[in-house]
Amino acid sequence: MERFRIRTDLALEARESFEGSETEVHGVEVEEEYDEKRDIRLTRVRILTERGAKEMGKPIGTYLTLEAPGMATPDEDYHREISEVLAKCLRELMGAEKERSILVAGLGNRDVTPDALGPEAVSNLLITRHLIREYGKQVMGTESVNQVSGIVPGVMAQTGMETSEIIQGIVAQTEPDLLIVVDALAARSTRRLSRTIQLTDTGIQPGSGVGNHRSSLTRESLGIPVIAIGVPTVVEAAAIIYDASGNCEQMPPHLNGMFVTPKNIDETIKQLSFTLSEAMNMAFQMEARS
Amino acid sequence: MERFRIRTDLALEARESFEGSETEVHGVEVEEEYDEKRDIRLTRVRILTERGAKEMGKPIGTYLTLEAPGMATPDEDYHREISEVLAKCLRELMGAEKERSILVAGLGNRDVTPDALGPEAVSNLLITRHLIREYGKQVMGTESVNQVSGIVPGVMAQTGMETSEIIQGIVAQTEPDLLIVVDALAARSTRRLSRTIQLTDTGIQPGSGVGNHRSSLTRESLGIPVIAIGVPTVVEAAAIIYDASGNCEQMPPHLNGMFVTPKNIDETIKQLSFTLSEAMNMAFQMEARS
Amino acid sequence: MERFRIRTDLALEARESFEGSETEVHGVEVEEEYDEKRDIRLTRVRILTERGAKEMGKPIGTYLTLEAPGMATPDEDYHREISEVLAKCLRELMGAEKERSILVAGLGNRDVTPDALGPEAVSNLLITRHLIREYGKQVMGTESVNQVSGIVPGVMAQTGMETSEIIQGIVAQTEPDLLIVVDALAARSTRRLSRTIQLTDTGIQPGSGVGNHRSSLTRESLGIPVIAIGVPTVVEAAAIIYDASGNCEQMPPHLNGMFVTPKNIDETIKQLSFTLSEAMNMAFQMEARS
Amino acid sequence: MERFRIRTDLALEARESFEGSETEVHGVEVEEEYDEKRDIRLTRVRILTERGAKEMGKPIGTYLTLEAPGMATPDEDYHREISEVLAKCLRELMGAEKERSILVAGLGNRDVTPDALGPEAVSNLLITRHLIREYGKQVMGTESVNQVSGIVPGVMAQTGMETSEIIQGIVAQTEPDLLIVVDALAARSTRRLSRTIQLTDTGIQPGSGVGNHRSSLTRESLGIPVIAIGVPTVVEAAAIIYDASGNCEQMPPHLNGMFVTPKNIDETIKQLSFTLSEAMNMAFQMEARS
Repeated sequence: MERFRIRTDLALEARESFEGSETEVHGVEVEEEYDEKRDIRLTRVRILTERGAKEMGKPIGTYLTLEAPGMATPDEDYHREISEVLAKCLRELMGAEKERSILVAGLGNRDVTPDALGPEAVSNLLITRHLIREYGKQVMGTESVNQVSGIVPGVMAQTGMETSEIIQGIVAQTEPDLLIVVDALAARSTRRLSRTIQLTDTGIQPGSGVGNHRSSLTRESLGIPVIAIGVPTVVEAAAIIYDASGNCEQMPPHLNGMFVTPKNIDETIKQLSFTLSEAMNMAFQMEARS
Repeated sequence: MERFRIRTDLALEARESFEGSETEVHGVEVEEEYDEKRDIRLTRVRILTERGAKEMGKPIGTYLTLEAPGMATPDEDYHREISEVLAKCLRELMGAEKERSILVAGLGNRDVTPDALGPEAVSNLLITRHLIREYGKQVMGTESVNQVSGIVPGVMAQTGMETSEIIQGIVAQTEPDLLIVVDALAARSTRRLSRTIQLTDTGIQPGSGVGNHRSSLTRESLGIPVIAIGVPTVVEAAAIIYDASGNCEQMPPHLNGMFVTPKNIDETIKQLSFTLSEAMNMAFQMEARS
Repeated sequence: MERFRIRTDLALEARESFEGSETEVHGVEVEEEYDEKRDIRLTRVRILTERGAKEMGKPIGTYLTLEAPGMATPDEDYHREISEVLAKCLRELMGAEKERSILVAGLGNRDVTPDALGPEAVSNLLITRHLIREYGKQVMGTESVNQVSGIVPGVMAQTGMETSEIIQGIVAQTEPDLLIVVDALAARSTRRLSRTIQLTDTGIQPGSGVGNHRSSLTRESLGIPVIAIGVPTVVEAAAIIYDASGNCEQMPPHLNGMFVTPKNIDETIKQLSFTLSEAMNMAFQMEARS
Repeated sequence: MERFRIRTDLALEARESFEGSETEVHGVEVEEEYDEKRDIRLTRVRILTERGAKEMGKPIGTYLTLEAPGMATPDEDYHREISEVLAKCLRELMGAEKERSILVAGLGNRDVTPDALGPEAVSNLLITRHLIREYGKQVMGTESVNQVSGIVPGVMAQTGMETSEIIQGIVAQTEPDLLIVVDALAARSTRRLSRTIQLTDTGIQPGSGVGNHRSSLTRESLGIPVIAIGVPTVVEAAAIIYDASGNCEQMPPHLNGMFVTPKNIDETIKQLSFTLSEAMNMAFQMEARS
């Protein structure tokens, strides 16, 4: 019998299904670090084998999850600390190479507040590719530099094209060494909203994200490494009913395409997108300087 | 025992609680008109007595509700038809006086998509007050004209002030004859979303609207007639659980402040706000010409 | 001696340099139609030879220019009339083929008001490519249909990429039959602003547009026909000094990168972008139905 | 004979008309401080007498002008330094009182990029009035606190009302102790753009600002102190012709209502509005803590 699955984009939530069971999941490694002073928890889930991937319902790869309850509150100093931790996580997934060309894609619909996270994050990035190509890398004042480009492709209802078609075309034309995609995610529980950031080197899978992208953005499909950064900003309407009622028979069909989101989502998106772009700016410059 | 009440801003939904009961609600008159060809239903609920008001949980006054399933779909001709019906409804509530000064307030948060209906509707209004005051009414090319002004006051998290404080101050200073407030509403069922427009001469009550305004905007509080135009664009998260489970014991407290809204809410708001502003432009000019 | 040239994106203005001279420009045909009742003037400039192209400083091709003084005023009926004329002009350049895949690119910076014309025009387009590909052409309710897709690529300061790189990548990936680019232009005189629409089958040349695109978008560079629709919304600051003083010695260098634009440019862009998207929607459906 | 005056909103520019003349202007005191390391110049102009006011064409009061060439470049640390200097200037004009209720009004049109400075600055303010009124001042974690409220009134073309009518109404209703207005200004020279911030305790005069407000916002008109913070973001088109040609006979009338602004004005507004809101947040908290 097919078990009903409420969709989650978070590896952390996928893993929680197994908590309490005595045996560990084969082919899956989990590490946790907790910074008590700043109340930041970092969980590193490594899915190593196909068996582990099947159990978790997520592809082989590394998933870093940062949890910090105060993430969406307006405290500038605290946000800088989160940005610093996030920059290190990003560097861990990016690897040691230097002087790369990095394309950052801000997925999602800028006209729907909880889905505007990616577009907003790209709008605060330090874009350098055109400057370095025109004036040489000395324009940046450092010896070793990354060329950063950014794109906000829009969503299918606005463009008539799959996000993946647009990104693939741009990647083929401009040949970056690395793609980073930033996206708003769907969580299974409202308790995760606006306090969790997930980074993974597995890219974007079909059906993920607030807007349910239908094609993948992965190393396989694009030929370059793809890092996905996501923050859950909505819960599917069906999920909160499942949580409350414990079964799915009462799931009304007209709830398809509906999502649950907090009333102050505008402040949250502003705060989080700024944290993400600051972290990326740091990571790209850190790398250049190291 | 206090019966649990899921909040609804719609008189129509308040009335449905009583459907099936043999006796009518005292002090409440209901009329329905159905335009089969265009599939537009107009319901007129008149709450005439305090007893009726208590039963309905809504103040004494007239509530016109327009229902049209295709309201949010992008068909320009159909929208013009809805705007025309809506303009007539608005005229019915405005009464026969001419050459008035009308202030339209677009309530809600323009940065949260389902709450941006009011601000968007005001941005497409034909604003004439300053022109008529500077150049005389002949500037409009008609003999009898309304002076139209508009304001988007923002929400309390952005201003630190109650919406009612801002509106009251502006009304006292500019002395309009009529206030029209446009607002996004919370419905009890997702089936109402983006297909229902409610007009009422009772103004805005505390706790209504997507952003839960805390003070009222009524003839009592402002000294001038207040017409409220609302469209349900969200459902409170608690309501969909209640609908699915039939009881409220499973209501998780962290769902407070969460709402449910469709993924394509950006297109809906664009379409509906345009319909509303077109209807107001028609009504204000119709009146002037009649 | 090199003659000083104030940049203009308008073929009409390029031609005016020669007015009053006795001989016509070789290889250039000019036709004018004037609709007195509606005060709409249509000028058709055909540059037929390389010599004509050199004289005009514009490539070989057809340039249709629509002039209507009331274009930026808020009169809905008049705008529909302009949209209809514009749709016919567009059909003339598109040619007779049917059931094409058409990509519309809204060039310019959506965050700088006079440069937001292209992005705004695309946001009101009827996008159909994804629907037709998923549900078949019967989804549109007509027998013969165009697949319409749209993209807002952003400007180089935001993306680090040339607009042409982004468009080329997307064209290569999604293989449309026709590209239409919509762009805000620089005129030489403020008298042209917001009352002139230019359509041409020559595409976009380097250095044109408000943002001065550096690469071309043409049939040669992309392999498919390219129609450019442009409306002048700014004048270069240098041009108004040249107009006033008659020489260029007084041209202060700090005026580079400065432009002149009207204070009510927000209303103009709203009005014009709506006219353009309505005209495109008509042209794409007209074609499908003819 | 009446000398032709190109409009400037800057006291600094008004004063420059007199430079080189041997005698000082009576009733006007000027002090300059220059921070060489950070290249920040602070000029303090005090107009003390009616005669000085007449000579300067500005009312009696204190004008602080901060000049920093790097103000519009994206360097986060440098901006924090400017914010700190600016916060001190603001404190100087605010005086020593504590625990005040402060209303900040962001004047200008948020839909016209160079005029969006005020609205953007307010959107990043820490708004506290509603919190302190609901939860008491301990909610802010300090003993002595200012209640901060904010309003974006829009411009007359959008509202049909004078900005001053809206502000007066809100001031009368909510009774703040101090009004701060933030506005984009017109300079006489493009060299001032985006590198000068002016603070004054004289409020806003008729005809000032990018949108040419027609009524004043002053202590006289409102009954409370009014501090105006302005940054020149445009130059009137007529001014650059005057600068180039040295006379006004060549001033074409169709340049009325036209302004000159840089192409990258979107980045400038983003940067400057953030600097202004950071400075206000600092000043309001500094005061509370001192």
